[in-house]
Amino acid sequence: MAARLGDIVARLGGELHGDADLMVEQVAPLDSAGPAHISFLSNPKYRPALATSTAGVVIVPPKDGEGLERTHIRVRNPYLYFARVAQLLNPDSRPAAGVDPMASVHPGARIHPTAHVAAGAVVGEGADIGAEVVVGAGSVVGEGVRIGAGSRLHARVVIYPHCVVGERCILHSGAVIGADGFGFAREGDGSWVKIPQIGRVLIGNDVEIGANTTVDRGALEDTVIEDGVKLDNLIQIAHNVRIGEHTAMAACSGVAGSTTIGKRCMIGGSANIMGHIDIVDDVVVSAVSFATKSIPEAGVYTGSVPSMEHREWTRNYSRLRHLDSMADRIKALEQQLATLQGNKED
Amino acid sequence: MAARLGDIVARLGGELHGDADLMVEQVAPLDSAGPAHISFLSNPKYRPALATSTAGVVIVPPKDGEGLERTHIRVRNPYLYFARVAQLLNPDSRPAAGVDPMASVHPGARIHPTAHVAAGAVVGEGADIGAEVVVGAGSVVGEGVRIGAGSRLHARVVIYPHCVVGERCILHSGAVIGADGFGFAREGDGSWVKIPQIGRVLIGNDVEIGANTTVDRGALEDTVIEDGVKLDNLIQIAHNVRIGEHTAMAACSGVAGSTTIGKRCMIGGSANIMGHIDIVDDVVVSAVSFATKSIPEAGVYTGSVPSMEHREWTRNYSRLRHLDSMADRIKALEQQLATLQGNKED
Amino acid sequence: MAARLGDIVARLGGELHGDADLMVEQVAPLDSAGPAHISFLSNPKYRPALATSTAGVVIVPPKDGEGLERTHIRVRNPYLYFARVAQLLNPDSRPAAGVDPMASVHPGARIHPTAHVAAGAVVGEGADIGAEVVVGAGSVVGEGVRIGAGSRLHARVVIYPHCVVGERCILHSGAVIGADGFGFAREGDGSWVKIPQIGRVLIGNDVEIGANTTVDRGALEDTVIEDGVKLDNLIQIAHNVRIGEHTAMAACSGVAGSTTIGKRCMIGGSANIMGHIDIVDDVVVSAVSFATKSIPEAGVYTGSVPSMEHREWTRNYSRLRHLDSMADRIKALEQQLATLQGNKED
Repeated sequence: MAARLGDIVARLGGELHGDADLMVEQVAPLDSAGPAHISFLSNPKYRPALATSTAGVVIVPPKDGEGLERTHIRVRNPYLYFARVAQLLNPDSRPAAGVDPMASVHPGARIHPTAHVAAGAVVGEGADIGAEVVVGAGSVVGEGVRIGAGSRLHARVVIYPHCVVGERCILHSGAVIGADGFGFAREGDGSWVKIPQIGRVLIGNDVEIGANTTVDRGALEDTVIEDGVKLDNLIQIAHNVRIGEHTAMAACSGVAGSTTIGKRCMIGGSANIMGHIDIVDDVVVSAVSFATKSIPEAGVYTGSVPSMEHREWTRNYSRLRHLDSMADRIKALEQQLATLQGNKED
Repeated sequence: MAARLGDIVARLGGELHGDADLMVEQVAPLDSAGPAHISFLSNPKYRPALATSTAGVVIVPPKDGEGLERTHIRVRNPYLYFARVAQLLNPDSRPAAGVDPMASVHPGARIHPTAHVAAGAVVGEGADIGAEVVVGAGSVVGEGVRIGAGSRLHARVVIYPHCVVGERCILHSGAVIGADGFGFAREGDGSWVKIPQIGRVLIGNDVEIGANTTVDRGALEDTVIEDGVKLDNLIQIAHNVRIGEHTAMAACSGVAGSTTIGKRCMIGGSANIMGHIDIVDDVVVSAVSFATKSIPEAGVYTGSVPSMEHREWTRNYSRLRHLDSMADRIKALEQQLATLQGNKED
Repeated sequence: MAARLGDIVARLGGELHGDADLMVEQVAPLDSAGPAHISFLSNPKYRPALATSTAGVVIVPPKDGEGLERTHIRVRNPYLYFARVAQLLNPDSRPAAGVDPMASVHPGARIHPTAHVAAGAVVGEGADIGAEVVVGAGSVVGEGVRIGAGSRLHARVVIYPHCVVGERCILHSGAVIGADGFGFAREGDGSWVKIPQIGRVLIGNDVEIGANTTVDRGALEDTVIEDGVKLDNLIQIAHNVRIGEHTAMAACSGVAGSTTIGKRCMIGGSANIMGHIDIVDDVVVSAVSFATKSIPEAGVYTGSVPSMEHREWTRNYSRLRHLDSMADRIKALEQQLATLQGNKED
């Protein structure tokens, strides 16, 4: 879906320099964009690519626009502007309203007339599917689940009974919302007695949840994902966790039970967050790092161990087992040296 | 579903102090429980919460019950007792027996008349579905699979052909049982030749398997999950693994091929277990730790690296590459110092 | 399905010693093989098992065959030969051609007459399903998806619109191909603006993808999985990644966005690969290791930290925080000692 450049700028703002009548068809990276494409410069290291790019129009920071002869838009945050242009040129294609004859909808479910329920989907008793919601092929919506207006479940999402999904959420295939938390009491013989998980999962508005990510229902109270949270693929959110507004978590990360994460945090890929801790707002946990205790101050926290050539690793990491004795030996050396020096000064 | 307190104690034991006619409606944590709730004190650090809690009844260890004026039950293991009360008040709601008209059941499958097969489920030839089993919406049960009495497959579980699930098991959504193990032989040119995975997965009784967890079928022999094992979400169990009775594994952990884990082990979240090793009974592998070799003795094993403030990490972890030379320098210092001291003593 | 030993050797090569008329029924490991089984010796440590094995025939390297009295086949690579015998004895059982009446196929999809679409599967408009393809129960094939001849989707695979799967691929249950990459621009208030992911996933020929593995579609260009790549379970491949021919990745590993991995690499279980890096051909990243930067040379790269007895870990790992000061103290000791020695020499 093409758009006139002048209309884009009228809608999204920015300072247009050049041909307002250019028809923009698609977004593209600088190095492969053609005359009907719009591209952007955000990282200064791509300036050489800007010089050679054949993009019809580029989005640049004001200082990079100075003296630039080609058609461009000057904005403070080119990447954000680019995201908005990309949304404009690639509107979500939603299927037509209605329930597919090969879906199974309980007569006691409420489906808004503008919603779409695809083939193979199953919607349970008392479920409430809001306006313009899409329930994808093979998705299963449990009893009493509420899904707010404009949300989209891609194919094969499962929402267990009584969970709540807000408005304009996107849930990707294989996501499982509201499975039982991992809660057991131990018998004297080591066997386990299951603790019924009677809480729910409450998901706010504008949340995106990635493919095959799991968010467990609470044990006694609810697991809560606040507005604007973005979860990537294959993430585990355990029972009773609360994740604050606009926090983003990259793939394969996990949060153990009863932990609270603040607003606007960024959790790197494969990061692990211990259970029963509190992390304040605006914390970054780096990729492949393990947050083992509460983090009371905003900042960046890291604990990953980089890989190296195998022989080098063998040499160095074998010492990890001897760090304690190395520390003791340094201390002993310091004392002996102090004695020696003391003697010398005598 | 409410229960009279006296009836609860008659059924589960414990020493009741207070009003046997109290109607208990639900379990709740100390800080949010009301007069119709039952709560428990297990960890002494919650004693202050006990004092202020408005719970109708609390479960406490005998010594905390002494002198306690409120209605309470004294038992040795309050958390275990709480689990049993929670089960009593929250019985599993199983759908009515029968095969949904939108399920697809092969005429050569045996479905017990008390079992339920939900909409969108697919059951293959020769499958044997036991008494009171629930096959959830969209679940796929392969040819020749046997599922024991009372087991429940939540929505969208897959069991590949010829695997066996015991009695009273719970499999959560997205679990995949019996996909091919990762077995290939390498050609001279680096390409891979698939080794057919002809083993099965055998799952014992009272096993729980979490959402999106995968248990691969054996290469030549079977992958075995013994009775009472509890697996959390997003866990990988590779081919030919055996996991002993009552072992519990937390989310995102993984076990590589042909490893044996003993009984009553506890494997922490995101822990990794190397392939082809043996771990004895009663071993704990801590969260985010990597068990790289056989563990012949019960105990706790750990190898995680905690995260820290990013600058501190940069300072310290950069030294990891130099651990070997640090050790060498300490040794050199010790020798030089010995020489110096020797000289001095001369 | 049994085969005459002479026929096996006629077909697969190798030097047969012994009874060509032996009927071989199945492959089995040395220690459990019976007279109708074929087994193999690859690792010299199993030579004692060879001596006691009751296998009808064994595959051995030439030097182990010398003087061996029992029926055997001599080949250079017994494991590879074993793989081929196993394939011969265990041919893939594909369901009969045709679309199950409980599948939902868009009238605008092309299904080859020799393909099978199982119950509960959903195939979208414009999808193109090749010869002898199997679309498993409950699988969802999006609009415009192309699947090449001979490929098999097991139950409950999802392929998002417009992705391409080559020939003879195997996709296991729960795999999600083409979900949106994790791409957002950040607003000033910390909220996120979604960047439409308009690339596709292109999967070559002879690729195997494990259960619950996710491969995200590209942001602007395509995510590419080249011919012969083997991905185990629960792997995350982020947007714009390219994985070279015949590279194999073990379970729970992950590759962050825009990274390129070369041909014939082997990525160990739970390994993590940073985004925006390049890894050349023939690189091995060990299990549970984190490749944090580009790897310009073939070789083995490792960074895992082995677990140890918990008290030992406590003693040693607490020192990690003090590595920097330990290094400083060693340097100070060296300087002081040099001073002392200098003084002495004066």
